[in-house]
Amino acid sequence: MISVKGALETVLNSIQNFGVEEIPFIKSVGRVLKEDILADRDFPPFNRVSMDGICIDFNAFNNGQRDFNVEGIQAAGSEQMTLKNNENCIEVMTGAVLPNNANTVIRYEDVTLKNGIATININKINDCQNVHAKGKDGKVGDVLISKNKIISAAEIGVFATVGKSVVKVAKQPKVMIVSTGDELVGVDEIPLEHQIRRSNVFTLVSLLEKLNIPSETAHITDDKPILKSKIKSFLKEFDVLLFSGAVSKGKYDFLPEVFEELGVEKLFHKIAQRPGKPFFYGKTNECNIFGFPGNPISTFVNCLVYFYPWYYKSTGVEIEEETAILAENVSFKPNLEFFLQVELKSKFGHLVAFPIKGNGSGDLASLVNADAFIQLPNDKSEFKSGEVFKIIRYR
Amino acid sequence: MISVKGALETVLNSIQNFGVEEIPFIKSVGRVLKEDILADRDFPPFNRVSMDGICIDFNAFNNGQRDFNVEGIQAAGSEQMTLKNNENCIEVMTGAVLPNNANTVIRYEDVTLKNGIATININKINDCQNVHAKGKDGKVGDVLISKNKIISAAEIGVFATVGKSVVKVAKQPKVMIVSTGDELVGVDEIPLEHQIRRSNVFTLVSLLEKLNIPSETAHITDDKPILKSKIKSFLKEFDVLLFSGAVSKGKYDFLPEVFEELGVEKLFHKIAQRPGKPFFYGKTNECNIFGFPGNPISTFVNCLVYFYPWYYKSTGVEIEEETAILAENVSFKPNLEFFLQVELKSKFGHLVAFPIKGNGSGDLASLVNADAFIQLPNDKSEFKSGEVFKIIRYR
Repeated sequence: MISVKGALETVLNSIQNFGVEEIPFIKSVGRVLKEDILADRDFPPFNRVSMDGICIDFNAFNNGQRDFNVEGIQAAGSEQMTLKNNENCIEVMTGAVLPNNANTVIRYEDVTLKNGIATININKINDCQNVHAKGKDGKVGDVLISKNKIISAAEIGVFATVGKSVVKVAKQPKVMIVSTGDELVGVDEIPLEHQIRRSNVFTLVSLLEKLNIPSETAHITDDKPILKSKIKSFLKEFDVLLFSGAVSKGKYDFLPEVFEELGVEKLFHKIAQRPGKPFFYGKTNECNIFGFPGNPISTFVNCLVYFYPWYYKSTGVEIEEETAILAENVSFKPNLEFFLQVELKSKFGHLVAFPIKGNGSGDLASLVNADAFIQLPNDKSEFKSGEVFKIIRYR
Repeated sequence: MISVKGALETVLNSIQNFGVEEIPFIKSVGRVLKEDILADRDFPPFNRVSMDGICIDFNAFNNGQRDFNVEGIQAAGSEQMTLKNNENCIEVMTGAVLPNNANTVIRYEDVTLKNGIATININKINDCQNVHAKGKDGKVGDVLISKNKIISAAEIGVFATVGKSVVKVAKQPKVMIVSTGDELVGVDEIPLEHQIRRSNVFTLVSLLEKLNIPSETAHITDDKPILKSKIKSFLKEFDVLLFSGAVSKGKYDFLPEVFEELGVEKLFHKIAQRPGKPFFYGKTNECNIFGFPGNPISTFVNCLVYFYPWYYKSTGVEIEEETAILAENVSFKPNLEFFLQVELKSKFGHLVAFPIKGNGSGDLASLVNADAFIQLPNDKSEFKSGEVFKIIRYR
């Protein structure tokens, strides 16, 4: 049985490169950027007026002048004007180019305008005030966004600003999610007494959707020849196969032998953790195979703990570890790493993790009340309130 | 000039009800649930075997018996069998119904199977072990998920389990995002010296996409009659109008007067904050109008600080406040509430906020390096490293 650390290392040593594609920038939120974004001009591209008001030559003010004839109006989006007489002023609008020969902007609030004369009503102004100088935020050619970043609304604004209407992002893997188990019926069906509805595949679809990965789903009955023939074709067609169920010790848990017969290299089977112990992980040259145990929480936690980091590393994203403070004592005797559902609360800058009591790995409803798993190591069995551990969020 | 607190109260007193719609459960991630989700049967719906192994009558073991004839195999998804002789056993698979007359499961790891006889190799087992009792996680009719929750992968699994193939969610508002400003050109265009590309509308589209709200966009030139006629029709057609620009003191900042002429009730104009001071907020009977200032960071922060909470309250969602610890001293003299970009780091269960130095409200690129805004109140001007303040995340 491999340790959680060993399992994660194995998974992270087996990443795939999905390649790069170009997509419209406005569709790129949540995707991983695969090119550096450069400034196509200085930012701001001109000495930019940052307040509505008048612009003057500061020397005139400094020489004691307070009344200025208005030469005209410099609107945002108009070509740059020139202040013809440096004892005059031009009205200027936020976003406009600062007129030639002017260097300082006084906002309307500090000015009286009457009969074509602007009178400045304050006695202290600064040279070059209310002007956002050309190139202050960045020079042409500067890297504004480095590649391997997950794109958010902030990056979208920069793409638009520099004219990147199409951006290079990591291609997403082609993923098939397979459920097994003859006890499963469809969501729209009424299960018989001994049946339950399929749920894990949909949970996995949603967990992948959070990474913007589209996926397909299939259900295969617990019949070895059928499993074998379908998986054989899936291995050729997809980059990643996610399974839920049929990896444990049961008489109908055919997956490990089917994988072996199909030439899947087993990298590990079973991890010293709860829930999610019977996890199978393997690969072929073209495909990574995550065989999650069939219990709902087991599938859920293993997708977060192994598939997510595998995907991030495959696409070049570095994710920072997050920690939280345990709010209650927890006792866990088995020699296994324990992933415990917790509700997170932000208290005075501290992230506090309140354990959610579930009824084991079958209790899907307990996930609804939690936000994350806290990862309690297997080198001890008593975990005290106030101790800090790694967490894995899912909300 | 209204305070941030007063502005937020005003916005939250002016929420809208967008109504409720039914959508396929698998499309519902990120939407707001508008019905309680009840257990349609007990969970588990039967005494569920939770380990692969054999099941027995505990009394037989308790009486010293260790060898059990195997009567058959109870597979998951098969009808419940009956243990005919309580000195025999039945092999059982995870997920199967526990056979009648049996009450305890011993996992294969602790059993030797040979010639149709199962021998238990351990001397300590517990009555009813490895059985997930009918109804233990929930009884038929129990509320598994309460309404007004934002749906995540965890909820999707529960919907599937209880057969909710269609769920009631809050309808999304119909939103139009309008940019103004004659200095703006399209993302695909090469701007002239005095022009810049449109970016705020796309940032807003992405910020709304994060709430799963689709939106339309338009650009209107700084021409009052055109502005008036277009906005007049938008007010009838949309639930929410978001504007970027034209709300300040400039000669071409026509929006406040256009709003007035169109019968928009002004709820406030200008907030004692930086960035984002010239924010205009108003409403008609059918429409809420958010007039964000045109600077990129102003639009961004006001969307997060005012539109997000307005949307959450409109749909019934309660969002918990999040706080972080300031990592450096910050000095801010103006008598304004200060929203400062920060990078967040998780350190030993503490959330630490590192200020990102930007060049004022025009510096969109500075958002790329930050994760959140920290809200520094206007009742003081020196903020010390180690002090705790509210944060507003955008990643």
